[in-house]
Amino acid sequence: MADTTISVGLEVRSANNPDIVGDLGTEAGYSFGLLQLLRAGVQEEILKPQNMISNAFEPANLQMTENSWAGFIVGEISACEPLDSPDDSTRQKCEALVKQQIQWAAHLGLSSVIFTCPSMDGGLNFPRVVGRALGMLGYTQAWVRITVTKRDTEAWKKWNVLRTLCEHNPKLVVALELGPELPNESFLQQWLAEPVRTVILSTTSFISNKKGFPVLSKAHQSFLRQLMELNVQVVISTECIDEKLNAAGGIAAYQQYIRHIYRTRPELGIVDQFASGYHDYLQSPLQPLMDNLESATYEVFEKDPIKYQEYERATYRALLDRVPDNSDIVTVLMVVGAGRGPLVQRALQAAENAKRKVKLYAVEKNPNAIVTLRARKEEEWGDLVEVVHCDMRYWEAPEKCDILISELLGSFGDNELSPECLDGAQRFLKDSGISIPSSYTAYISPMSSTKLYNEVSSYKDLEHMETPYVVKFRAVHELAEPKAVWRFDHPDRKVVMDLGSPNFNNHNTRYSTQRFQTKTDSMMHGVAGYFESTLYKDVMISIHPKTHSPGMFSWFPIFFPLKSPLYLPANSYVDIHFWRLCDARKVWYEWTAIPVTQDGQTKTCTAIVGAASSIHNIDGRSSWIGL
Amino acid sequence: MADTTISVGLEVRSANNPDIVGDLGTEAGYSFGLLQLLRAGVQEEILKPQNMISNAFEPANLQMTENSWAGFIVGEISACEPLDSPDDSTRQKCEALVKQQIQWAAHLGLSSVIFTCPSMDGGLNFPRVVGRALGMLGYTQAWVRITVTKRDTEAWKKWNVLRTLCEHNPKLVVALELGPELPNESFLQQWLAEPVRTVILSTTSFISNKKGFPVLSKAHQSFLRQLMELNVQVVISTECIDEKLNAAGGIAAYQQYIRHIYRTRPELGIVDQFASGYHDYLQSPLQPLMDNLESATYEVFEKDPIKYQEYERATYRALLDRVPDNSDIVTVLMVVGAGRGPLVQRALQAAENAKRKVKLYAVEKNPNAIVTLRARKEEEWGDLVEVVHCDMRYWEAPEKCDILISELLGSFGDNELSPECLDGAQRFLKDSGISIPSSYTAYISPMSSTKLYNEVSSYKDLEHMETPYVVKFRAVHELAEPKAVWRFDHPDRKVVMDLGSPNFNNHNTRYSTQRFQTKTDSMMHGVAGYFESTLYKDVMISIHPKTHSPGMFSWFPIFFPLKSPLYLPANSYVDIHFWRLCDARKVWYEWTAIPVTQDGQTKTCTAIVGAASSIHNIDGRSSWIGL
Repeated sequence: MADTTISVGLEVRSANNPDIVGDLGTEAGYSFGLLQLLRAGVQEEILKPQNMISNAFEPANLQMTENSWAGFIVGEISACEPLDSPDDSTRQKCEALVKQQIQWAAHLGLSSVIFTCPSMDGGLNFPRVVGRALGMLGYTQAWVRITVTKRDTEAWKKWNVLRTLCEHNPKLVVALELGPELPNESFLQQWLAEPVRTVILSTTSFISNKKGFPVLSKAHQSFLRQLMELNVQVVISTECIDEKLNAAGGIAAYQQYIRHIYRTRPELGIVDQFASGYHDYLQSPLQPLMDNLESATYEVFEKDPIKYQEYERATYRALLDRVPDNSDIVTVLMVVGAGRGPLVQRALQAAENAKRKVKLYAVEKNPNAIVTLRARKEEEWGDLVEVVHCDMRYWEAPEKCDILISELLGSFGDNELSPECLDGAQRFLKDSGISIPSSYTAYISPMSSTKLYNEVSSYKDLEHMETPYVVKFRAVHELAEPKAVWRFDHPDRKVVMDLGSPNFNNHNTRYSTQRFQTKTDSMMHGVAGYFESTLYKDVMISIHPKTHSPGMFSWFPIFFPLKSPLYLPANSYVDIHFWRLCDARKVWYEWTAIPVTQDGQTKTCTAIVGAASSIHNIDGRSSWIGL
Repeated sequence: MADTTISVGLEVRSANNPDIVGDLGTEAGYSFGLLQLLRAGVQEEILKPQNMISNAFEPANLQMTENSWAGFIVGEISACEPLDSPDDSTRQKCEALVKQQIQWAAHLGLSSVIFTCPSMDGGLNFPRVVGRALGMLGYTQAWVRITVTKRDTEAWKKWNVLRTLCEHNPKLVVALELGPELPNESFLQQWLAEPVRTVILSTTSFISNKKGFPVLSKAHQSFLRQLMELNVQVVISTECIDEKLNAAGGIAAYQQYIRHIYRTRPELGIVDQFASGYHDYLQSPLQPLMDNLESATYEVFEKDPIKYQEYERATYRALLDRVPDNSDIVTVLMVVGAGRGPLVQRALQAAENAKRKVKLYAVEKNPNAIVTLRARKEEEWGDLVEVVHCDMRYWEAPEKCDILISELLGSFGDNELSPECLDGAQRFLKDSGISIPSSYTAYISPMSSTKLYNEVSSYKDLEHMETPYVVKFRAVHELAEPKAVWRFDHPDRKVVMDLGSPNFNNHNTRYSTQRFQTKTDSMMHGVAGYFESTLYKDVMISIHPKTHSPGMFSWFPIFFPLKSPLYLPANSYVDIHFWRLCDARKVWYEWTAIPVTQDGQTKTCTAIVGAASSIHNIDGRSSWIGL
């Protein structure tokens, strides 16, 4: 757990002076306060027909003066609801009022302002005004207060309209107010993919424990803990500070309780511990063929507690199947892409356990890894192992092997060019020989993540929007269960290598279309990719969420972004098209996602192509893996 | 009629040699020919399992050699349909075949190649391959052959998927084949907004006239004439040149008939004559307040045969209403924005016709126009007219007038700041006085036009995508009838000018939301804008398509682009939100279009916000009109 504290703020809804929130808040242990920028009654006064818009621009209308608590206060913007009034004059006046508050907040240098999201049934003037405000706010962040309650299931839709019309401006974040009763799970989960910075809890959403101290219901606690993983802060909102707070410990008890919840979050699992610091962090996939891995990279991956154990199990089982007990036959093993030797070690261990005689070739192209391999042969393995410094695709082996062992898989299975490498290596596998792994399957699912979308789009270029990234997901909402797109099997005896031809690798191209149905209204930001691999018979490794090998941390999922987020209504369909393509020098992926409508009567499907529907990475223009 | 000839090409579907099409085609008066690039039977051969992809790359597979007819032939690309085969090997081989043809066509420098659009039920590999081909074709244009028949109503949808996934590449154009029976009107009209470059007519789509010569049905003739307005060329397609063509005059008769149809198109109306050369040409709206109009601009607009006639009628009627017959009362008229004096002239004529005594002030800010006004006073008008060189917004008039006449309207009514100018000018209009015009209303409708979209997006910047243009529409399809967004009335006695305030003009802001229902599947590229104006009582001028003043040519419609085209299925709804906004120095429009779904049972509407749903021109960042 990296962070040990959480910031908790206070809102006193009846406060008419920053000193009230400031003095009482700090005294009770709060880190910041929320306060209306506009004095009570001003809005009503300005809206009277005899008062002109210009009257709004009076200093006396504003609650905060230059020097009081500017560093402590988040300013609340009033007069948002009437921005969509059908009455021209009301709308014009409230817009002037909002503008005045924005200018004042920017002038004071407040760290944040907070808008209350209106119903937006009538129109879209509120999003337009907020969009305009974002341009005027400088470094001040804009929160939008959205309440989730059991009844109102439209909250996320309102947010989605707002942020879309504000052009996905990353300065706009959510202040999520949790009502006394929460809606069902699916309406909560969609928020985990959104930029929720703040959780607002009214004192009325708390219940009392036996000693009379304020606590939250189990449902509130559970959702709050999930939100805490997104690094939120919390605001306690109370109508009045001196009201009978119906709670032992007074107003301070609320922040103490929130901090208690934060400190007592459950311990992280081993994968999450390993991933600490990598959540939602975009990494470019490895290019192991073009680049040589560094020692530190090997070091990290060799520590995986599960992966090598499963390889050892697979090798053990293959050895048993290959040769009867008590036979003198020597099984020839080849570890291709041996790296610093972890698989060599495990293969020898498997042979010892299985009581089988083996001879092992360790083939590796990286000259730096060869140094380690030779040292280990010298010190540990002796004559059992022959170290070969060569690219497996071009090696002329002195004999054929019985078992070919490789660990060339990427997060998407084939994305580190395992198929191409093993096409070359299977030349020296006996006709009856075994490849470990024997197959791998790539899986995809549509996903939502404002965080990842903003990360990718912050580069402001096409290239980054058309590149896959390896990412440990956190602020991500999967919109449907993953489906398989394609599989590679090894050995593949149909393959005839025609190395002179520019099309020699065409048999490794793939194309697959999968249809997904979404459960909730959502914004699709990209495609999540996973793999499952059969090492040998029923020995599997997997990073597919449903079948993930417990404790295995060598692979994070892969993320293929969409250039333009795609709105998918609840229960609607989206087709994801995926290609694996190649030319003589490289391999790349192309992808597109197309919403599909189904006619209720005829059941015919129509692809809804729109601006968001371009094919990504045409001809590998933005990203590729070198052969 | 600018063009007097039309290019007609020939396709002989059984031809296995460019000489057949070339020799026979030129002999029979054709300007170009279509020919399969791949030899018959090659595709079948390559697809046999024993043949490898590399076998496709044989020169003998190709029909055209380097020197034969390369300047005459449009190359037909074979093997498109199996690009979406579920069989990996078939798909891989056909993709290699298509690529080979593309490279060969680019190498020969053919002016165009033509793809035949497959059914695309199975997948999206065809669009991907075409998209890739566009990058390889250099200056060679890509036609896609799409057939419209009575039965297949999906033709446009296929095209729409294709061009969208090819990222609206302007090199991709339509070769529209008209089947023997045409679908109903709405399925034809949608093509008029598309880049149809070629119309293909099979000889079997012709009928015979009494003399046995080939002619087209009335329906075919009518649609072909409409397409001819888009500057299409025509291709006559025949299975075999020596077949019994069932037509007098042989193959030559077809091209002669097409050329006859072209020559005998109906004469253009007066507006179209005036607009000749302006069709689909983007003009920036005038900025009459900031810039001074040039003499040539005045010259053009003064020639309008209808506008000034209607102003004279309105003035005549107002004068009759203002003063009884045979009265000595002098009616004070002011023409504000008098330009070179056309309205002054018409007002004096109206007074003479009405037998009313008048005094007229001609107020104009443009110093160059003042020269002309003073000369005309000297030579024509004498003491009846006083010429005032002043901006009407700031003029201190020596007396108040009875009738205030102005011609400040733009294509959208208020877009040349008539409201702001008349706010200023109404200071010197008597309380009981009359403004001509007395009101104007802005109208909008959703529209489709690939041509205009490509024109705007060719600038590759945000600014041009957020700017309105004045355009004479041609390759435009209106998706629904226009609806009114707002109206300005003059005089408006509620207005209190508060010139010192930065908000002095807020009363001229407007916001309006209109919902439209589309008739056919379509791609919305923008919003068309029009105005209707009441000059006085029932004297109107209008450029609204349904009420357009016949023969009036002073205004073309206005076009507000969408940054991202919006796919609208047939019978779906779209909300267009329009704002007129201002600050102290300028006025601008903002707009957005949001598709709306209606739940069949609950009738609740949900806005489908997506990537295409940004508000255009936020805060007037891209376009505005200076005050």
